[in-house]
Amino acid sequence: MAALPRLGRRGGLHRSREGGSSGVEVTDGGERGLTVDGDRLVADLERLAEFGVNEAGGIDRTSFSAADLAARQWLIARCEEAGLEVAVDGIGNIVVSSPDLEAGLADQAPVWTGSHIDAVPNGGRFDGPLGSLAAIECLRRLHEERVPLARPVRAVVYTDEEGNYAHLFGSSALTRGFSVAELSNLVGRDGDRFADTFAASGGDLDAAAEVRLAPGALHATVELHIEQGPLLERQGIQIGVVTGIVAIGGGAVRFTGQADHAGTTPMIGRRDSVVAAAEFITLLPALAPRVGPAAVVTTGIVRAEPGGSNVIAEAAEVVVDYRDPSTDNARELEALIAAVADEVASRHGSRVETHWEDIVPAAPLHSEVRDAIRASAEQLGYSSVDIASGAGHDSQNLATLAPTGMIFVPSTGGRSHSPAEHTPWPDVVRGADTLLGTVIRLAS
Amino acid sequence: MAALPRLGRRGGLHRSREGGSSGVEVTDGGERGLTVDGDRLVADLERLAEFGVNEAGGIDRTSFSAADLAARQWLIARCEEAGLEVAVDGIGNIVVSSPDLEAGLADQAPVWTGSHIDAVPNGGRFDGPLGSLAAIECLRRLHEERVPLARPVRAVVYTDEEGNYAHLFGSSALTRGFSVAELSNLVGRDGDRFADTFAASGGDLDAAAEVRLAPGALHATVELHIEQGPLLERQGIQIGVVTGIVAIGGGAVRFTGQADHAGTTPMIGRRDSVVAAAEFITLLPALAPRVGPAAVVTTGIVRAEPGGSNVIAEAAEVVVDYRDPSTDNARELEALIAAVADEVASRHGSRVETHWEDIVPAAPLHSEVRDAIRASAEQLGYSSVDIASGAGHDSQNLATLAPTGMIFVPSTGGRSHSPAEHTPWPDVVRGADTLLGTVIRLAS
Repeated sequence: MAALPRLGRRGGLHRSREGGSSGVEVTDGGERGLTVDGDRLVADLERLAEFGVNEAGGIDRTSFSAADLAARQWLIARCEEAGLEVAVDGIGNIVVSSPDLEAGLADQAPVWTGSHIDAVPNGGRFDGPLGSLAAIECLRRLHEERVPLARPVRAVVYTDEEGNYAHLFGSSALTRGFSVAELSNLVGRDGDRFADTFAASGGDLDAAAEVRLAPGALHATVELHIEQGPLLERQGIQIGVVTGIVAIGGGAVRFTGQADHAGTTPMIGRRDSVVAAAEFITLLPALAPRVGPAAVVTTGIVRAEPGGSNVIAEAAEVVVDYRDPSTDNARELEALIAAVADEVASRHGSRVETHWEDIVPAAPLHSEVRDAIRASAEQLGYSSVDIASGAGHDSQNLATLAPTGMIFVPSTGGRSHSPAEHTPWPDVVRGADTLLGTVIRLAS
Repeated sequence: MAALPRLGRRGGLHRSREGGSSGVEVTDGGERGLTVDGDRLVADLERLAEFGVNEAGGIDRTSFSAADLAARQWLIARCEEAGLEVAVDGIGNIVVSSPDLEAGLADQAPVWTGSHIDAVPNGGRFDGPLGSLAAIECLRRLHEERVPLARPVRAVVYTDEEGNYAHLFGSSALTRGFSVAELSNLVGRDGDRFADTFAASGGDLDAAAEVRLAPGALHATVELHIEQGPLLERQGIQIGVVTGIVAIGGGAVRFTGQADHAGTTPMIGRRDSVVAAAEFITLLPALAPRVGPAAVVTTGIVRAEPGGSNVIAEAAEVVVDYRDPSTDNARELEALIAAVADEVASRHGSRVETHWEDIVPAAPLHSEVRDAIRASAEQLGYSSVDIASGAGHDSQNLATLAPTGMIFVPSTGGRSHSPAEHTPWPDVVRGADTLLGTVIRLAS
């Protein structure tokens, strides 16, 4: 793996190990097996949350932003401080290993565990960082205890999971790959060209186009993540064994009516695209339960054009996201949404254009990894339950390459992608302990 | 009046007098009275439409944009070429006079006629330019013919009628005035501070705060404008005698719900501000006819925050514009809109905040000016009808200072504030002839 100078360079080291805050005892063996240093993990999470924090307490850490680059530097230094080795691939995925543990295992496909540290705008402190820092903590504990394993264990931080430039960008580069031409066309949510931003951070498009992994390169992967929904908390369950990741569809629906003066055009005879789009949005929530009880549909972006207070908008664009545990149900939901768009448009004298992205199919997770997670939770004395993931994760890409599983811990109030995102420290440590037990099982 | 160097400087002169295109004969007297040079007016309108024209054929000429400044330079040069004198006041209003005609009339309050040349984004070619260039053409004809008058006639181009920085900005500076502190706080629709943009174009805030006119400064004012609605065309009438300008209200309605992950949050229990805002928008059109048959209500701007495709929006903001010929009806409509916002918000578990701007009261226009317009149309052999203005105009400010009237000509299909805005050349010339007759009556 080629090292990217800026993405991978050493930064200033900030140590922050406050003890005793996790509320869970560290144990080094016995019936419960090896466990993590909860206080150290909590301190790492608190430190990482300082990068890109805004006045509202939210995290602004878009991939390749200054905050993201600084956080990467800190994280790399933190690993090296623990005696671990850090490599950064051509797209910026960070891969951490323990040379001591890998002695004599060069022929064995490794077990990967990890997540991401980039965030949605005004996002939370746990979505990504938990699975990233817990992975590093697991590897650190294995390294400290020189635990004998049958295959390498590596901690991974995937680039741009939140899709500033492309959906699950870093893991997609590992599994589907991107050509230089494709990479050259990517544009971020702030309108910047990926090629420019990447070059400014020391990246090289040719190297980024060469990171795809060969089949069999990995033995298995597992990711710890917050649930981002309310179900574990409501049921009082400590560990979620993720059965699969839902199918995800989305796209833009554009209504075009007629621009006119807001003051001089009688109400009768208007072709107001905003009123059409608004009616469309109000009809969406009732469509989801028609395809399945777990289906969801959301409008997170809406804009009127030209966007003047005294102009009847000529066009209104609505961005729709829809999901279901079944890919077929997601397709059916897309068809229902399109039909409603047509119906509303014709009633309002508007034209409608829909641009759907390809549906990301549902990704069932591997039964052997799920078994390992369940067994680890049981050994630790934690309650567990099967649960579907409504959010997309890098693991759905990794699942196309190797047996893959995910562990969920509760999200307070189900809140996520917001400054209110929260998981109690004891749940954080329970998740990391379960991850460590799972990794040991997979690598034994 | 202080001259602003850049706002008022001479620019390159582009002549464009194609003859014979207006379809109406020029006459210099007789039963119909003095008339304008229609071909010259049409050529001026065609030339002005080149400043800020975009690929769609729309006009992007926001006040103080490069296109606006270039158009002002051309217009000033065009006046000076005709032997007229140009002054620019501290806020950028352009006042054109004929020194020859004003000899011996220094003690007489002048008659003003004019409009504006700034445009809404992607606006049309007639809204503002017609009344500005027709006013200049009228003054040019009076100057050419050395028509003896009892008081000065001046052609005026008001700054920023479309309210990039403040509603009817230039005429408001003349009638209500702005303090330097108020001017310092103004922000344009592109987020620029007025103080910065104004300084860059050579303006000075102290001078801008000093342009307010004294009571009695004007004898009367009259403005020619396109109807911007469909009524004259539908009735086949050539000239609209404007009875008054409707009351205009507006403001922002902000729904605040709860940001959550679009994939992991079940449909039940969401507090989705976009769905609340959408339902609010769909309920507005039915409110207008409850206060009066001419009432209108429009949502031209809507945005979701934070605005991510996979985030249930925490807040959605809707900008509402509402109007009625009666100020009381407009107040009643505002109350109905606020009540619906409250009702929708409570049903969706959202908070709602409303920020209403002061209602601009309905402005009845002066009966003597209306009589002068009607008499001029009649002398020219044009049909006329009384009509209310659904759009705001600088004339509603001027009406607080002096007897004021407005002349409307038909808008094809009622289209306005769009590239489709159109008035046939014969209607343009009929409007200018009527304006000239009216100005002569008011100044005699």
